[in-house]
Amino acid sequence: MPTLTFEAARACVVENVTALRALPQVETVTLADAAGRVLASPVFADRDWPATPRSVRDGFAVRSSDTPGRLRLAGEIRAGEPASAAVGIGECIEIMTGATIPEGADAVVMVEHTRREGDYIEAPAAKPGQFINPRASEARRGGLLLEPGSRIGFAEIALMAAAGCSHVSVFLRPRVAILATGDEIVQVHETPLAHQIRNSNAHSLAAQVRRAGGVPAILPVARDTRDATRALIEQGLAADLLLLSGGVSAGKYDVVEDVLASLGAGFYFDRALIQPGQPVVFGRVNRAFFFGLPGNPASTMVTFEIFARAAVELLGGQRESLLPLTLAPLATPFRHKPGLTRFLPARLDSGETVTHIPWQGSGDVPAIARANVFLVAAADRESWERGDLIQVLMK
Amino acid sequence: MPTLTFEAARACVVENVTALRALPQVETVTLADAAGRVLASPVFADRDWPATPRSVRDGFAVRSSDTPGRLRLAGEIRAGEPASAAVGIGECIEIMTGATIPEGADAVVMVEHTRREGDYIEAPAAKPGQFINPRASEARRGGLLLEPGSRIGFAEIALMAAAGCSHVSVFLRPRVAILATGDEIVQVHETPLAHQIRNSNAHSLAAQVRRAGGVPAILPVARDTRDATRALIEQGLAADLLLLSGGVSAGKYDVVEDVLASLGAGFYFDRALIQPGQPVVFGRVNRAFFFGLPGNPASTMVTFEIFARAAVELLGGQRESLLPLTLAPLATPFRHKPGLTRFLPARLDSGETVTHIPWQGSGDVPAIARANVFLVAAADRESWERGDLIQVLMK
Repeated sequence: MPTLTFEAARACVVENVTALRALPQVETVTLADAAGRVLASPVFADRDWPATPRSVRDGFAVRSSDTPGRLRLAGEIRAGEPASAAVGIGECIEIMTGATIPEGADAVVMVEHTRREGDYIEAPAAKPGQFINPRASEARRGGLLLEPGSRIGFAEIALMAAAGCSHVSVFLRPRVAILATGDEIVQVHETPLAHQIRNSNAHSLAAQVRRAGGVPAILPVARDTRDATRALIEQGLAADLLLLSGGVSAGKYDVVEDVLASLGAGFYFDRALIQPGQPVVFGRVNRAFFFGLPGNPASTMVTFEIFARAAVELLGGQRESLLPLTLAPLATPFRHKPGLTRFLPARLDSGETVTHIPWQGSGDVPAIARANVFLVAAADRESWERGDLIQVLMK
Repeated sequence: MPTLTFEAARACVVENVTALRALPQVETVTLADAAGRVLASPVFADRDWPATPRSVRDGFAVRSSDTPGRLRLAGEIRAGEPASAAVGIGECIEIMTGATIPEGADAVVMVEHTRREGDYIEAPAAKPGQFINPRASEARRGGLLLEPGSRIGFAEIALMAAAGCSHVSVFLRPRVAILATGDEIVQVHETPLAHQIRNSNAHSLAAQVRRAGGVPAILPVARDTRDATRALIEQGLAADLLLLSGGVSAGKYDVVEDVLASLGAGFYFDRALIQPGQPVVFGRVNRAFFFGLPGNPASTMVTFEIFARAAVELLGGQRESLLPLTLAPLATPFRHKPGLTRFLPARLDSGETVTHIPWQGSGDVPAIARANVFLVAAADRESWERGDLIQVLMK
């Protein structure tokens, strides 16, 4: 089965999920409940934005050809009032931010730049159009404001509020089954023996799924026998996506891949040139996608973020899924063995510099909790000096 | 009243809120409900992590001094089993990832690097400690895993699950009152006249407050009269934080600052050298903080993200509040007039390059919705060439 580079594996997930997904069912929610959901219908402008030319400053509406000069103050207009009388030659009208530019005027001069004497103001030179937001400059009536598949954030909320959408059509959240595997796993409320560990992966995956817009369903832990594992995997494949953690390395008791194969699974890849998380599996049984995420906690978290999160977002109806990758200068030199793309816990200090956090490998959850980003070390480079730019993945 | 640079204004918010805040009350929630909340009590390790030295590979536990060499296979040990018998001289024990290293062994060789012949394996040279995660290497029993004031993300969830915290002590969310002002504002479900606009700011602020961990309460719109505004501001000051939008520019009908002053408000700043959002106000009445956010939608959104979000997070008990600022190379040249720090809508393409989105000024919500980051143009630089690095603020 294929081993892919990080970039090829990610492209494989995005392309196959996009090609084969069925878009989710739709429901209607109030605007207040829409944040974080995925828009299911386009949003159009119900009028020109702005509906009239607007002043973007407090000051005076003027005819630019009259400026500089002494102008007679012929009235005032506030943002909450209908358009006023026209501005005649040699006149001006006092205007507040957001108010409609009166007929005749073609510029606004700022109040701070004028001097008033009784019913007259001394106006500086104004260019035509100055401090005016023209009608329809932001959107035309009937124009498309938001496409279906947009994840609704605060700007989309503002836009829908402005367009009069008090109710919003959104996609149902995808259901994501989470199946931790392994004989060594006990529940969170239990006290593990020396050779046991608590089930942390199912809980961190549930938080990650929720953040990606999905509804997590944690299945019972699958013990390392074929029958127990098969029954739970079949149950998980009824969801929109199945996330398995553990059971995908080369160990002889890792029965997960055998069970999946016996269910007719197709595997897109079963290894990626990354660390942590090298033995990551992506495939499908009929139209149900699954990931086999390596069981070490850091591997589970990282492979979810870089691969499975895109699947959750796309199955939730998002038009696209982008990794939040940028650059930051290193606070200390960094080197690694090329060949694998590495995702390592790191601290980004308010955009200044990024510092690698020493860690004990892919079981080291405390190091990941101390991190606020992952440093991304490219597979084709060996060393970075202090101050060199390196990719960071926002956590 | 003082005008501050962006950096000084942000430091002013963080320092004053941190110095004067009372930490919120505490409640207990289940682990499943803890994501996104702020931890109120420290979390300690209930045992060494790992509790025993663990194998980080599937393979064979060996005595490194016996390698390279032919070793007798004396048994096997799985992750779900107690420690096995010791490894004697010339012996090895088959071991699965996560299983306890048996007595006598000091290294693991990967199954892929060995050759098996009946009860013997041919092992390559192994260094002492190879593929072993030592006992307590990630945390010591009783050691501090998480400090109070940590915002709970997926890694914190994993860590608390592993430490046996099925219930978590968290701070109550801060209550944030939102008060839009202006005679021109109508409700979302209403049809505005040509000179009116719908109330979008209250709704986008509510989404931003929720994302920052607060509970928003939208007050009725304050009309531009002293009495109406005063009653609503007094109501808003009973919350943990009051956000006003509109009413803070130099217009003669902007009564907000007058009303605040008459209530005995102290003002830390009433102008910041930024765009959009220059006339932003930060102050307090007794111990209640407030922001006067400029009413143009983009100004409201940006000034919330760069100033008010920090206040919500700190009032919610977070130990620190960091701006998600990094760097990206520009896809096209960019120039601006120095003197102000500008926050402009931009698209970041999977960490490759950032592109400025043309916009019509601080009313242009469609441009902000198309953006996935804000480009941050420093106040002390005039131009950037294609490929130059520029700061980006994650949206």
